[in-house]
Amino acid sequence: MLLKNNIPIGYIFGKIKYEILFVTIYGIAIEVIYQNFHITNISIPMTVPTVLGTIISLLLAFRSNQAYDRWWEARIIWGAIVNDSRSFARQIIFLMEDPFQPENIEAFKQRIIKRQIAWCYALGKGLRKDDPMPLIRKFVSEEECEYLKDYDNKHVGLQQLHARDLNNALKQGWINPYQQIEIDRTITRLCDAMGKCERIKNTVFPSTYGLYIKMALHFFILLLPFGLVQLFGFLMVPVLIVITACFFLIEKMAIHLQDPFENKPTDTPVLTISRNIERDLKQMMKDKHVPSAYEPDAFFIL
Amino acid sequence: MLLKNNIPIGYIFGKIKYEILFVTIYGIAIEVIYQNFHITNISIPMTVPTVLGTIISLLLAFRSNQAYDRWWEARIIWGAIVNDSRSFARQIIFLMEDPFQPENIEAFKQRIIKRQIAWCYALGKGLRKDDPMPLIRKFVSEEECEYLKDYDNKHVGLQQLHARDLNNALKQGWINPYQQIEIDRTITRLCDAMGKCERIKNTVFPSTYGLYIKMALHFFILLLPFGLVQLFGFLMVPVLIVITACFFLIEKMAIHLQDPFENKPTDTPVLTISRNIERDLKQMMKDKHVPSAYEPDAFFIL
Amino acid sequence: MLLKNNIPIGYIFGKIKYEILFVTIYGIAIEVIYQNFHITNISIPMTVPTVLGTIISLLLAFRSNQAYDRWWEARIIWGAIVNDSRSFARQIIFLMEDPFQPENIEAFKQRIIKRQIAWCYALGKGLRKDDPMPLIRKFVSEEECEYLKDYDNKHVGLQQLHARDLNNALKQGWINPYQQIEIDRTITRLCDAMGKCERIKNTVFPSTYGLYIKMALHFFILLLPFGLVQLFGFLMVPVLIVITACFFLIEKMAIHLQDPFENKPTDTPVLTISRNIERDLKQMMKDKHVPSAYEPDAFFIL
Amino acid sequence: MLLKNNIPIGYIFGKIKYEILFVTIYGIAIEVIYQNFHITNISIPMTVPTVLGTIISLLLAFRSNQAYDRWWEARIIWGAIVNDSRSFARQIIFLMEDPFQPENIEAFKQRIIKRQIAWCYALGKGLRKDDPMPLIRKFVSEEECEYLKDYDNKHVGLQQLHARDLNNALKQGWINPYQQIEIDRTITRLCDAMGKCERIKNTVFPSTYGLYIKMALHFFILLLPFGLVQLFGFLMVPVLIVITACFFLIEKMAIHLQDPFENKPTDTPVLTISRNIERDLKQMMKDKHVPSAYEPDAFFIL
Amino acid sequence: MLLKNNIPIGYIFGKIKYEILFVTIYGIAIEVIYQNFHITNISIPMTVPTVLGTIISLLLAFRSNQAYDRWWEARIIWGAIVNDSRSFARQIIFLMEDPFQPENIEAFKQRIIKRQIAWCYALGKGLRKDDPMPLIRKFVSEEECEYLKDYDNKHVGLQQLHARDLNNALKQGWINPYQQIEIDRTITRLCDAMGKCERIKNTVFPSTYGLYIKMALHFFILLLPFGLVQLFGFLMVPVLIVITACFFLIEKMAIHLQDPFENKPTDTPVLTISRNIERDLKQMMKDKHVPSAYEPDAFFIL
Repeated sequence: MLLKNNIPIGYIFGKIKYEILFVTIYGIAIEVIYQNFHITNISIPMTVPTVLGTIISLLLAFRSNQAYDRWWEARIIWGAIVNDSRSFARQIIFLMEDPFQPENIEAFKQRIIKRQIAWCYALGKGLRKDDPMPLIRKFVSEEECEYLKDYDNKHVGLQQLHARDLNNALKQGWINPYQQIEIDRTITRLCDAMGKCERIKNTVFPSTYGLYIKMALHFFILLLPFGLVQLFGFLMVPVLIVITACFFLIEKMAIHLQDPFENKPTDTPVLTISRNIERDLKQMMKDKHVPSAYEPDAFFIL
Repeated sequence: MLLKNNIPIGYIFGKIKYEILFVTIYGIAIEVIYQNFHITNISIPMTVPTVLGTIISLLLAFRSNQAYDRWWEARIIWGAIVNDSRSFARQIIFLMEDPFQPENIEAFKQRIIKRQIAWCYALGKGLRKDDPMPLIRKFVSEEECEYLKDYDNKHVGLQQLHARDLNNALKQGWINPYQQIEIDRTITRLCDAMGKCERIKNTVFPSTYGLYIKMALHFFILLLPFGLVQLFGFLMVPVLIVITACFFLIEKMAIHLQDPFENKPTDTPVLTISRNIERDLKQMMKDKHVPSAYEPDAFFIL
Repeated sequence: MLLKNNIPIGYIFGKIKYEILFVTIYGIAIEVIYQNFHITNISIPMTVPTVLGTIISLLLAFRSNQAYDRWWEARIIWGAIVNDSRSFARQIIFLMEDPFQPENIEAFKQRIIKRQIAWCYALGKGLRKDDPMPLIRKFVSEEECEYLKDYDNKHVGLQQLHARDLNNALKQGWINPYQQIEIDRTITRLCDAMGKCERIKNTVFPSTYGLYIKMALHFFILLLPFGLVQLFGFLMVPVLIVITACFFLIEKMAIHLQDPFENKPTDTPVLTISRNIERDLKQMMKDKHVPSAYEPDAFFIL
Repeated sequence: MLLKNNIPIGYIFGKIKYEILFVTIYGIAIEVIYQNFHITNISIPMTVPTVLGTIISLLLAFRSNQAYDRWWEARIIWGAIVNDSRSFARQIIFLMEDPFQPENIEAFKQRIIKRQIAWCYALGKGLRKDDPMPLIRKFVSEEECEYLKDYDNKHVGLQQLHARDLNNALKQGWINPYQQIEIDRTITRLCDAMGKCERIKNTVFPSTYGLYIKMALHFFILLLPFGLVQLFGFLMVPVLIVITACFFLIEKMAIHLQDPFENKPTDTPVLTISRNIERDLKQMMKDKHVPSAYEPDAFFIL
Repeated sequence: MLLKNNIPIGYIFGKIKYEILFVTIYGIAIEVIYQNFHITNISIPMTVPTVLGTIISLLLAFRSNQAYDRWWEARIIWGAIVNDSRSFARQIIFLMEDPFQPENIEAFKQRIIKRQIAWCYALGKGLRKDDPMPLIRKFVSEEECEYLKDYDNKHVGLQQLHARDLNNALKQGWINPYQQIEIDRTITRLCDAMGKCERIKNTVFPSTYGLYIKMALHFFILLLPFGLVQLFGFLMVPVLIVITACFFLIEKMAIHLQDPFENKPTDTPVLTISRNIERDLKQMMKDKHVPSAYEPDAFFIL
């Protein structure tokens, strides 16, 4: 997630530097042809680019809206993961009870809640196609890591372990059947959240949609200097650059927003969120080793 | 689902080749009339096509938004099918228990989970109006295939079998009443997902809506060269072709997106998703024969 | 619901024939005044109608979006009715059990499920202000029809009978308390669906909203020929007709879409859907007399 | 809620009569200055008002969309109140049972259901800041009215009485614990509906948003005649009036739609809906004294 | 939340005073250059700013829509907090019962409900980064304040205390297992609400999105006087100021709406809402010391 301030100029314009370079040369060339060679009949009225510009603005506006919706949905899902992780920990801590050997169950609760922290990291890493095992190992026993080996999606395996423990807890009499079902529902909600993230990750935004807008946009840029050439003289070039930059930047922004799990600065900050979940859950367990929150060391957090 | 790259030019323009052919001839004809026969009073100011262009852009933008929403909803539903299939398998594995004969129940669980895999394939095939029986047979016993014969919608029949088994499990004492209800709820959610897919499949996007936009668009294309003829000379023809292509491609894209279960490259990739469900569920069952994921062999996955 | 093809020209243009007639006469009159009487100062620049046209397009686009949303919501509700009817039948068949007299309960189940079919037809007919009793009688006993007499909304009465039977089933020990609650929830969801349909039926789309758009649209049409008169000569009349037709058709379409229970071709096809529910539920009951699906005999289904 | 027809002209234009009066005088003044004093350099090209007009149309379109959403949400909430009131009554009637003294419980059920009717009226009246007590007294005993005295929001108090009765019913053994929870959930849904209405009532639509649109709109109207003055002569005045009327009417409509509980003709018809709930619930109780539905005696229902 | 009336002029224009100052000087400078130095070729046709204006209006309209959605979502969440707090109190009062020592439980109920009031204030204060402890202390015992010390988020800690008390109540036999689960669900909903607020608070609206719009807007303002200079003479300056003001005000409004927990007048009024919750809950407890509602002492409430 980009932070509010300090976004470096280089980051902003780096993404469109080739486009701008091309447009500069292209604009100058046309201007030179018009001014020096007096081929003035290449000038066209602004109406034609205007029509195209309106259409493209409209499509671009809708498109960035849809990209924004994907980005916001990804954030909503991770917000739900925060909520359900907290609820899960609360339920584990206060719904489970062993009237006879309270010591046993304490370790059991710790194990489940730590595994939930691991699940958050595993999901975040997995979505970005990083290897989640190093982070998982910090929270989960060796034997359980072994269990995960067969799973493509480690987070699916971790949930299986949750369900297995829950089943044991019922057999031990630590929870009653209603409590089992209620905690199982929380797991189901977390399972939904994880599937929703995978959906956003794995669904390509309709390629043709983006492609047609890109084509129309390029055509508009190609046509634009013919409309401007008569009006601005050599001032046309900066005007052309600014208009081009506006359109291309907004298109690029849409492209970045629409894929929020790509290890890019515009990503949903899954690691920062996971760290906050770790902090909250450890505070709930009265754990002494609460890590500090991630401090942003750049213009974005991941 | 179209993939990100490698969409062949032929695929993109194949869909509008007749439109482009017609527009080329039409544009040349008008240009010839204007230039060679000097019938210059057919030229009209660009304002008239501009008004029409704005209106059509607006309607087209809203319309592709609605088509996108249908496409995205279809994908959301299949995402929910992934989630609920996983939750269903988790519940079958860890909520069911036979304290006396654990061997019996193992086969029983395998049967249900395999049937769930069959259900996913059956739904995917059924939506595309293909015969799902060949795929179902791979996961379901002969006797159960027999049971399905009376059903138009095989996926409805498969769910009936789920419910019958669940009822048996309760009678055998393998699950308690709360667990039965909870698993029944998962089946209800899967039933909802299947009905939602059928709704999208069976509901024609308002025909008149599309028709009026198409009419307005054609009229706009017919009017356009009269506005351009004066400005571009014979360069009008390529300009005309590009503008026409932009509009028609966006209209076609909307038409494709709005029907996501038609065996077309823009479809929701129900078979690929079903295969992933198969992989996940088999890994959960510790099955040895996990198939590999579908590898895309073209510019799309189905 | 209109089908994809074969929409007769008469249906499309029948709705705006008076508007087109008027516009034709009006356009010719202005043209005659302009051309024959040389009152040329009635011509105005296209800019004024353009502004109006943009505004109206925008409002019309939003408005048809809202109408589309109502139409789509109606279809979603009927999709939910399909789902919940299937879930209801599944629950009745597989959650109810009489360990001692399985024959008794079979008839009981048949009665409830048939009544559910009746409920679907009753709701569909009721929404269209038709008398639902003839269809209800085919599925429900004479005594129960008697019970319905006091009810304005027959579908509310049918649900009461469902709840009464459920209460009996609990007293007989055919279901346990959790199963009663779960089936009651399905009834509650069906009750919600029925209320949502009534909401769409009974809520007039804000009259003034439609009215202002209509006024602005008429004013725009009245102004338009003054802008076109100078540009097209007598060709103005067909151009005027096409533009008028585009705008009026889109307005009419919005008006039709926004009221989906009016016995019109654009309606949500409640009878076809109810028939499909009947087919599904009878197949679930292993009933021999499954009716065939409705075949469309026109360009729409009801 | 405004009905479909018979909206008096006076109602429509009454809301903007001062605006129209001002614009008429203003338009004539400018025309006189232009024509009689020949100060023609006050004329400006239409492009400037056009830009402003486009912007304002866009903002106005979005804004009326948001107002429409509020209005529609209010209607959806009252639709949910209808559904939940019916479900509540159904549950009270068929989930409660006294095996020993069926007479006692009959009066008890009547009391609860009548109180639910009172709750609907109380909420409707309360939202409009009317005193709900006269209507409540018709359905609720004197002693319970006494109980309500301490409550600002009578509908909150009525729900407390529901919960108290439910608690009693459990103690009497008239319902089992699952049934209590299920009915409590229906009360929770009704509680949500009531809070949602209050949210819409108490949340001022962002004042600055409306203000800036109003300012821009006024500025546009002030600028408009300078653009029109050259084109229309004295015909400018009616053209100006119509354009002004279109914009102002749409703005006023948005203002009315966004506040649906203000005792105005555009309100959500809470009393009519409450009456229909009364009719439905009394028919469910087999009550003899079912009131007739409200007949609209004007162009709107309240 | 801004109230309907009395918004001081100073507040409205204070936010854009530097922009207006700059634009005034800039406009006058250009006018002087044009008029006095007769450098008239700096004038450009209005078409170029018009294209830009349309694009920016479109993006600005979408953007204020998204900001409005965030603001409205924040309000919806706080509406849900009102509802769930009421439901929570209702459930605590009427689901808990001690048949033997009714006095004990009364104090217990008071403690929980007061803690719920504290939770609302704590969440509101916490979102605004104020210290919530002073307000919490008014409702919660010293010992419990001690418990909260380890928590970053006091509202998370308060919910833990709720869950602990609930667990005790089950052990004491004051509630049955279903009631425990039902109340736990209400806590889960409150936990969701609190996470949703934090999501809105902690998610920066895509910085680049805002940045690009701002850039395009500034460029448009810079270009505008060159388009206006020829048309208005020195009247250009006020026209320029008004147009600039419209655009900048709408942009600023979007910026304010999108962050609703910043201690600014446009905030969601969390303290006022919390006070209303306090009033409702105390009336439910028959508490004598119900505070009066906040009276707005300015043009906004917090």
